[in-house]
Amino acid sequence: MTQPGFFKQPTPMTLGEVAALTGAELADPTRASQVVSATATLDRAGPKDLAFFDKRKYGDELHHSHAGACFVSASLQAEVPPRIAVLRVARPYEAFVEVARALYADTLRPASTFGNEGIAESAIVHPDALLEDGVVIDPLAVIGPDVEIGTGTVIGAGAVIGAGVKIGRNCSIGPGCSILHCYIGNDVIIHPGCRIGQDGYGFVSGPKGHRKVPQHGRVLIQNDVEIGAGTTVDRGALRDTVIGEGTKIDNLVQIGHNVVIGRRCIIVSQSGVAGSSTLGDGAVLGARVGVSDHATIGAGSMLAARSSVVGEVPANVKWGGSPAKPIKQFFRELFEVERLGREGLNGGKSKPPRASEEG
Amino acid sequence: MTQPGFFKQPTPMTLGEVAALTGAELADPTRASQVVSATATLDRAGPKDLAFFDKRKYGDELHHSHAGACFVSASLQAEVPPRIAVLRVARPYEAFVEVARALYADTLRPASTFGNEGIAESAIVHPDALLEDGVVIDPLAVIGPDVEIGTGTVIGAGAVIGAGVKIGRNCSIGPGCSILHCYIGNDVIIHPGCRIGQDGYGFVSGPKGHRKVPQHGRVLIQNDVEIGAGTTVDRGALRDTVIGEGTKIDNLVQIGHNVVIGRRCIIVSQSGVAGSSTLGDGAVLGARVGVSDHATIGAGSMLAARSSVVGEVPANVKWGGSPAKPIKQFFRELFEVERLGREGLNGGKSKPPRASEEG
Amino acid sequence: MTQPGFFKQPTPMTLGEVAALTGAELADPTRASQVVSATATLDRAGPKDLAFFDKRKYGDELHHSHAGACFVSASLQAEVPPRIAVLRVARPYEAFVEVARALYADTLRPASTFGNEGIAESAIVHPDALLEDGVVIDPLAVIGPDVEIGTGTVIGAGAVIGAGVKIGRNCSIGPGCSILHCYIGNDVIIHPGCRIGQDGYGFVSGPKGHRKVPQHGRVLIQNDVEIGAGTTVDRGALRDTVIGEGTKIDNLVQIGHNVVIGRRCIIVSQSGVAGSSTLGDGAVLGARVGVSDHATIGAGSMLAARSSVVGEVPANVKWGGSPAKPIKQFFRELFEVERLGREGLNGGKSKPPRASEEG
Repeated sequence: MTQPGFFKQPTPMTLGEVAALTGAELADPTRASQVVSATATLDRAGPKDLAFFDKRKYGDELHHSHAGACFVSASLQAEVPPRIAVLRVARPYEAFVEVARALYADTLRPASTFGNEGIAESAIVHPDALLEDGVVIDPLAVIGPDVEIGTGTVIGAGAVIGAGVKIGRNCSIGPGCSILHCYIGNDVIIHPGCRIGQDGYGFVSGPKGHRKVPQHGRVLIQNDVEIGAGTTVDRGALRDTVIGEGTKIDNLVQIGHNVVIGRRCIIVSQSGVAGSSTLGDGAVLGARVGVSDHATIGAGSMLAARSSVVGEVPANVKWGGSPAKPIKQFFRELFEVERLGREGLNGGKSKPPRASEEG
Repeated sequence: MTQPGFFKQPTPMTLGEVAALTGAELADPTRASQVVSATATLDRAGPKDLAFFDKRKYGDELHHSHAGACFVSASLQAEVPPRIAVLRVARPYEAFVEVARALYADTLRPASTFGNEGIAESAIVHPDALLEDGVVIDPLAVIGPDVEIGTGTVIGAGAVIGAGVKIGRNCSIGPGCSILHCYIGNDVIIHPGCRIGQDGYGFVSGPKGHRKVPQHGRVLIQNDVEIGAGTTVDRGALRDTVIGEGTKIDNLVQIGHNVVIGRRCIIVSQSGVAGSSTLGDGAVLGARVGVSDHATIGAGSMLAARSSVVGEVPANVKWGGSPAKPIKQFFRELFEVERLGREGLNGGKSKPPRASEEG
Repeated sequence: MTQPGFFKQPTPMTLGEVAALTGAELADPTRASQVVSATATLDRAGPKDLAFFDKRKYGDELHHSHAGACFVSASLQAEVPPRIAVLRVARPYEAFVEVARALYADTLRPASTFGNEGIAESAIVHPDALLEDGVVIDPLAVIGPDVEIGTGTVIGAGAVIGAGVKIGRNCSIGPGCSILHCYIGNDVIIHPGCRIGQDGYGFVSGPKGHRKVPQHGRVLIQNDVEIGAGTTVDRGALRDTVIGEGTKIDNLVQIGHNVVIGRRCIIVSQSGVAGSSTLGDGAVLGARVGVSDHATIGAGSMLAARSSVVGEVPANVKWGGSPAKPIKQFFRELFEVERLGREGLNGGKSKPPRASEEG
C-alpha cells in the first residue's frame, strides 16, 4: 500500500482467487496460494503487489519490477522474469482494474468525508424532507423542503439540496455541491462543487437591454451517471435538461439548458455543450470540445479534443477540428498547413513574419 | 404545467389579457375570454398552453400541435390550423417571453432554496453586519463584519459574504458563492458557486521564484448584472475590476483583475478575459472566447465563439478566429484551408499524413 | 488609498526607507524624509503615492501625474517632471511591487473573511483532528477526523477538510474549498472554491458500459504553491498527483490524476493538464492551454496561450499552436494562412464563401 491513510487496508487475495475473479490463467498453478494485497504499477510494485504488462515499451520496468504477480497477454508472456507470477489474460489492464475494484471496493463510491454515519447533528434538514433509513448526511449539509433521498446515499459536507429535489439510492453528492430543480436516479456520483439545476443563460435583447427568459425546466440525471468536480448543468428553460444512464462527465464541463445527453456518453474535462443540443447514445467528446447550441451529435460518434461542433454530426463517425469535420480531412488540413508554413504560398519567397508573443 | 414541483402554479390569463400585455392582435376577437395557464413549445403544448411559431421549419410541429393559442407574425399566420387561436405580433418569440415572464414571475429571480423567509437561525451573521428589513438569509450562510445588504435580497444556503461587502436591494446570491472585497448594486443575480473578489494572478518572477504582487482593489458589480454558475471574478490589483450595468455573464467564465466590462455586454460560457482588459458597452463574446491581457474590445463589437483577442478590436465590428480578425477574412481563411486540405499545396500530389489520434 | 474598506491603512514610509528597501537611488537626496503612504498607477496617484514609469508609451500619464515619487530606470529619468521625486532603479516595476509588499503586507496571504481569530464556534472540528495553536478556522468550516493543521494557517468559511488531510503552517484555504486525500506543505494559498483530491476520471469501457477504475492516490502540494479560484486537482489513481514547490496556478484550471507538476511552474487560467502528464521545473502554460494525457513538457519550456500539447515538448523551448510546435513555425503558419485567405489557393480566383455565423 503506497498511499497510507486514505482508504481501508485491503483484504489480501490469493492468485487462485484472482484468476477465478478475472478469468485469467495462472501460468504456474503451484503459486495459486500466493497472496497479493494491493495493485500497483510495475515500477512501484512490491512482492505483495499485483501489476499488469500490456505494452512492450514498459519492458524495462517489467524487468526491474519487484511485483509478486502480473497480468500479461499470451503474446507478451515470454517477457516476464520467472520471479513474477504470470496471470495470462486477453486484456491485462481490464483484469487489473477488476482486481482493484475488488480490493478497494470502498473507493468505488466516495464516502463521508467526516467518517460519519447517519445524519450529522449540524446538518440542516427541513422537516418536510423525506430521508430513507441508511442515508448519510455529512456536517453542515442543507436539505430543503420536500426533498426525498434514498437509502445508501451520502450527502457531502456543506452540500445544498434545494426544495423538491429527489435523489435515488446509493448515490454520492460531494462536498459543497448545490443541487436544485433536479431528479436524480440511483448509483449516481456527483463530485465536489458541482452546480446542478440553476437557471440557464436565456435573454431577449432589445432597446431596454437583455430581458431574462424564465427558466422553469428541471434537470433529470439517470442511473449510474458520474459528474466531475466543478461541472455546471443548467436546468431546462421550456423542457428538461437530461443526462442519460451511465454517462460519465469529467471536471469543469458546462452543460446548457435543454441539452439532452444520451446513455453511456463520455464528456472529457472543460468541454461545453450549449443550449438545446443533443448527444446520441455513446457519443464521446474529447477534452475541451465546444458544441454550439441546437447542434446534434449522432450516436456513437467521437469528437477529437479541442474540436468544435456546429450543426449536425452523423452517427458513428470520428470528427475533429473547428468547425468539426471527418478526422482524416482534419488531419489532412493540419498536414497541408504545416507544409504551407514550411514552403510558403509561393514557394518560400514570401516574407517571414516578425515573431511576437500571442498573449 | 409540464414540470411539476419547482415553481408556483401560474395564475391563468385570458387571450384578451395576453393581447393587451404584448400588443398582439387576436385574430378572432370572439376568443378573448379563452384562457391559457402556461407557455410551452408547439410540440409539448396542450389546449391550455400558449405557444409561438416563427420559423417555417417548425411547420410540422405547428400542424400537429395541441396548443390553445399561438403567437405568429402576419406573414406566417395562414399556416396556423383553425383550432389554434392566432395572436398576430411582429416578434412572436419576444411576445411569448413577455407572457412567460408574467406567468412565471417567481422564476425571474432565484428564491430561497429552503423555502425560507427572514434570517435562518443557522446562518452566521456578524454583529457588525447591517441587514435591511426584508433580507432573506438561507441556512448556514456566513455574513461577515461591516457587510451591508439591502431589502429583498436573498443570500443562498452556505454562501459566504466577506467583511465589508455591500450588496444592494432585490439581489440573489446563489448557494455556495463566496463574495469578497466587492460592492454590488441592485437587481443583481449571482448563480451558485461563483467566486467573486479573491486575489488575481499577479507575480513578479525572478531568481527567487514568483513573488506575489499585492492585490488590493475591489470588484464593482453594477445594477442588473447576472453572473452564471461557477464563474470567477478576481478583485483588482491596483484599480478595481468593474462589471457594468445590465451585463450578463454565463457559467464558468474567468474575469481577471482590473478588467473593466461595459454596460449590457454578453459573455457566453467558458470565456476568459485576462487582466486589465476592457470591453466597451454592448460587446459580445461568444462561447469559449479568450481575451488576452491589456486588450481592448470596442463598444458593440461581437467576437465569434472560440476566437481569441490580442490587442485592440475596433467598435461595432464582427470578428472571429485566433488571433481574431474581421469575420469575413476569418471565414475566407477557413474556406481556403479546407480547400488546401482537399487539393493539396501542389495540386493533390503531396503525400497524405497518417491519421493518428490527437488526444 | 483609493479602495477603502478592504485592507488596513498602510504605515507610511519615507523615500529614504523606500530607497533602502529596493536598492533604488533617490535622485534628490534632500527628499529622503518625504513620505509615501500608498502605491498607485501614474494616472491615479496623488502626492502621497508612489508610482513607477517603465514604458515611454505611458509618457502622457507621467506628465500629468500627481504622484509624489516614481521609480524609473536611468534611461527614462529625464522624462520625469521635477515635482515628482525620482527613484532610479534597474527594474522599476519590481521595485514598486517590493514597496507594495511592504505597505500591504496583510494582503499577501488571505485572512479570515469573518475578522475571526482562533476557531469559530460554529465550525465543526472532529475530535480526532489535531490543530496547532494559532490556527484560524472561520465559521462553518468542517474539519474531518485525523486532519492535522499547522500554526498560522487560516481555513475559510464553509471550507471542508476531509479525513486524514495534512496542512502545513501559514497556509490559506479559501471559503468553500473542499480538500480531500491531500497533503499540503507550508505557505500554500488555495483560493475560494477549489476542488482538491476528489476522484479522477478513470473508466474501462466495455459492453457493460463504463466501469469505474478505483482512484486511490493522493494529492501532494509542496510549499509556496498558490492555486486560483475554482481550480480542480484530482487525486492520483495508482500514484500521487504532485504540484511542485513555488508553482502558481490560476483560476478554473483542471489538473488530472497522476499529473506531476515541477517547481516554480506557471499555469494560466482555464488551462487543463490531462491524466499522467508531467511538467518540468519552470514550465509555463499560457491561458487556455490543453495538455493531453501522458504528455511531457520539458523544464523551462513555454507554451503560448491556447496551444495544445500532445506527446513530448523538449526543455527550454517556446512552442505554440495546436498541436504545439516551435513558436516561429507556428507564427509562420499563421502568416501563410492569412496570406492564403487573402490571395486564395489559385491566386484569388477561388469563389468566396458565404459568411455565416459560427455559433
